[in-house]
Amino acid sequence: MSKEAEIFVGKKPPMNYVLACLTAFHEGANEVVVKARGQSISKAVDVVEVIRRKFMPDAEIKNIDIGTEEIPLKDGQGSRRASSISIKLGKVKKVK
Amino acid sequence: MSKEAEIFVGKKPPMNYVLACLTAFHEGANEVVVKARGQSISKAVDVVEVIRRKFMPDAEIKNIDIGTEEIPLKDGQGSRRASSISIKLGKVKKVK
Repeated sequence: MSKEAEIFVGKKPPMNYVLACLTAFHEGANEVVVKARGQSISKAVDVVEVIRRKFMPDAEIKNIDIGTEEIPLKDGQGSRRASSISIKLGKVKKVK
Repeated sequence: MSKEAEIFVGKKPPMNYVLACLTAFHEGANEVVVKARGQSISKAVDVVEVIRRKFMPDAEIKNIDIGTEEIPLKDGQGSRRASSISIKLGKVKKVK
């Protein structure tokens, strides 16, 4: 079984997203994907680093992807581009 | 031969770093590593995406690393932590 959760990092304080990730792992997710766009990309990296440093030293970064997303403008005319990041965090299985 | 260049993204406008990377490739680098800390991480991702989308569609992201760096405070007492990113861009060799 490989349950995956997705956390989208936005305008809230970083610790909100740290807690959301820890909760997802606690509820049985094996992998949590932390996503962000534009200026929130730095915050997403902070979130992952806090999780690894303070709460889950055995969490492993399985994959990091960057890309560009087209975001439709609110007036419905055209779109703007924003960079995005997606960081996949996994629980390391304990060897018994 | 594998020549590697390093570009550190900071406070200047993104296009400055885009040009620095393109210049490094032009001068013979096979790989360019784009690095940034803290709030500049988002800018580093933008820089890499602009290079790939507008200037070098055949450039390949070879590796992305995130981490935490200790930065000594200016008063010499203690240090603060900042997240960091390191994105390795490579020229794809043309198959003849």
